[in-house]
Amino acid sequence: KQNKLLFVSNVWYSIAKYLEQHEKKVIHSIKVGTALILVSLLYLLDPLFNHVGESSMWAIMTVVLIYDFFAGATLSKGLLRVIGTILGGALGCLVAFLAEDFGKIGYTTVSGMSVFVLGAMATYCRMIPSIKRRWDYGIMIFILTFNLVAVSGVRADKILDVARLRLIAIGMGVAVCIITNLFIFPMWASDELHNLTSSKFNKLACCIEECMEAYFNVDENKRHLSINISGCKSVLQSKSNDESLANFAWWEPWHGKFGFSYPWEKYLKIGEQLRELASIILPLHACITSPLQASTTLQQPIKETCKNVGLSLGLTMRELGESILKMRRGQEKVIKIPELHSFKLELTILSTSELQATENVEALAMASIL
Amino acid sequence: KQNKLLFVSNVWYSIAKYLEQHEKKVIHSIKVGTALILVSLLYLLDPLFNHVGESSMWAIMTVVLIYDFFAGATLSKGLLRVIGTILGGALGCLVAFLAEDFGKIGYTTVSGMSVFVLGAMATYCRMIPSIKRRWDYGIMIFILTFNLVAVSGVRADKILDVARLRLIAIGMGVAVCIITNLFIFPMWASDELHNLTSSKFNKLACCIEECMEAYFNVDENKRHLSINISGCKSVLQSKSNDESLANFAWWEPWHGKFGFSYPWEKYLKIGEQLRELASIILPLHACITSPLQASTTLQQPIKETCKNVGLSLGLTMRELGESILKMRRGQEKVIKIPELHSFKLELTILSTSELQATENVEALAMASIL
Repeated sequence: KQNKLLFVSNVWYSIAKYLEQHEKKVIHSIKVGTALILVSLLYLLDPLFNHVGESSMWAIMTVVLIYDFFAGATLSKGLLRVIGTILGGALGCLVAFLAEDFGKIGYTTVSGMSVFVLGAMATYCRMIPSIKRRWDYGIMIFILTFNLVAVSGVRADKILDVARLRLIAIGMGVAVCIITNLFIFPMWASDELHNLTSSKFNKLACCIEECMEAYFNVDENKRHLSINISGCKSVLQSKSNDESLANFAWWEPWHGKFGFSYPWEKYLKIGEQLRELASIILPLHACITSPLQASTTLQQPIKETCKNVGLSLGLTMRELGESILKMRRGQEKVIKIPELHSFKLELTILSTSELQATENVEALAMASIL
Repeated sequence: KQNKLLFVSNVWYSIAKYLEQHEKKVIHSIKVGTALILVSLLYLLDPLFNHVGESSMWAIMTVVLIYDFFAGATLSKGLLRVIGTILGGALGCLVAFLAEDFGKIGYTTVSGMSVFVLGAMATYCRMIPSIKRRWDYGIMIFILTFNLVAVSGVRADKILDVARLRLIAIGMGVAVCIITNLFIFPMWASDELHNLTSSKFNKLACCIEECMEAYFNVDENKRHLSINISGCKSVLQSKSNDESLANFAWWEPWHGKFGFSYPWEKYLKIGEQLRELASIILPLHACITSPLQASTTLQQPIKETCKNVGLSLGLTMRELGESILKMRRGQEKVIKIPELHSFKLELTILSTSELQATENVEALAMASIL
């Protein structure tokens, strides 16, 4: 019996551990399930169904299509869906009414032409990068709604009624999404971007320190083993992720530490600087692990200064990351920009061979201004 | 009158020029418009409407949602939509039939529970990276269809009829998309990836040559002006674009030069190598434009070799790009790997300061094996 208990507790322990590791994903899945149930009630419960009717299908569709991991993404898709539906529906009704006078064949021609022209124009707009970045989903919904309304005018007599019910259903779907997504354990894209930006500083600081340590380590044999540049590489490839997070964060309402019109584009600029710094550290690492090395006698004169540079750089980066994370001013006694500049000068006099390491100072100086 | 003619011809000329620049986008827009008209005919023409009925709405939705710029993307979304609909519909029907025996309240409970459990599980699957990369859209459609069918079983008596008609409509929508997208001026993601990969070699070759030229140019004043590293930066940030193109290319059928199971993942590997090379060129450029420079006397001994390295590297890169573009073996007299190795050795003896430039050779050697 004790064995059984042990087994159960083991299973329970590993499940709990798994859930803890993937906590956010599990919460998101449960939230989606809840939203789906809530919206299904429109169908399942008679009083609700009598009110909305078959259109409640659109509420389910809305939830499935717009529910996203991040609050900002859900919010943006929801708002764009409502706006796109209203605009597309209004324009579609207009075309349907105008075309009504032309008789059956005339109607077919006019609505067909308008579908072609507006569809092509809106599709073209979707490919313009600045529009695509923020309004892509809205335009797609606009095309869809316009097309459905303009074309179905030929069949449905009560086109306005249908449009009204669908709009209500979509509105309900959006409401369910926003409530379950924003009020139950919300995952803010802004928090994610904030923490990621701060952690990037730490990652790069680690890389710099490890490189310096490995290069000037006395023991020749151990040199290659200890450098882990995966952090550096992940920073280098963070651009598209950062941009989508900043885009979602733009939509997110006032919450936590972030007020309205919080300067998310500055995070993108800091990210850009950090990527440049990472692209400097990467070849530095390549130089260090290369089988061709300068002799120890050549290394000796720059050793002390380089080590100091690495140390101060690492400290400064960590402090900058920390100050961004906690949203306070960097402490001046830790951030040693003038000291780094003097190191740079010293190194320049000594040699040009380690110039890359000191290039970092410029990127840092810019980042610290922000 | 001549003025008017001149004006018209001017306008026409600028329109023609604009169209030529944005040719692909315009063609895509027209294709979308055509597909929308074709699918609208299901609604507009009586014989077709009598056959499919209100379900033709689903055909329009399908076209709007799955039509994409690249043939591979349209094809993958279309196939995933059909597969997801069939699986979701089948499972939904199963649940609806099983729950029928439990009476009204039992049905509501069972279908609600199944919606929650399957919705949450499928959503969790969507967040696993390897599944997300290729099957994301299919799982979303699965959730949608399952939910709609399982829930609507409580109302519709002829649930199988409804499901059949919707499936037909979706199939028609997918067919219209595939026909207009793949047979009228198809935009292959595979072509795009192929050309992009080849052009990256050229971009990097330009950067290397410009850097070398600028560094060893005698005229000190002109040094800073002539280096254009935007090509290098664009290569560095091409990862996510490459990956999505390779994913689309995987779905594309046999066409042009590319057979079945063409090794697209090798393009990703080459891209990775080129990004590493680019991240080496970037700080090289930073060193060159830095205000702190080695004296001309220090430069002199390495000048000749470095110039040769730059020249051979540039030539080799161009040749590799060309050979990838035209899908033929690189010509051995142009690709001078052994020569580059000897240069590297020479430089190592001279100094370690220009080590970065020669690091490239390794990346090149790997790329040339492919």
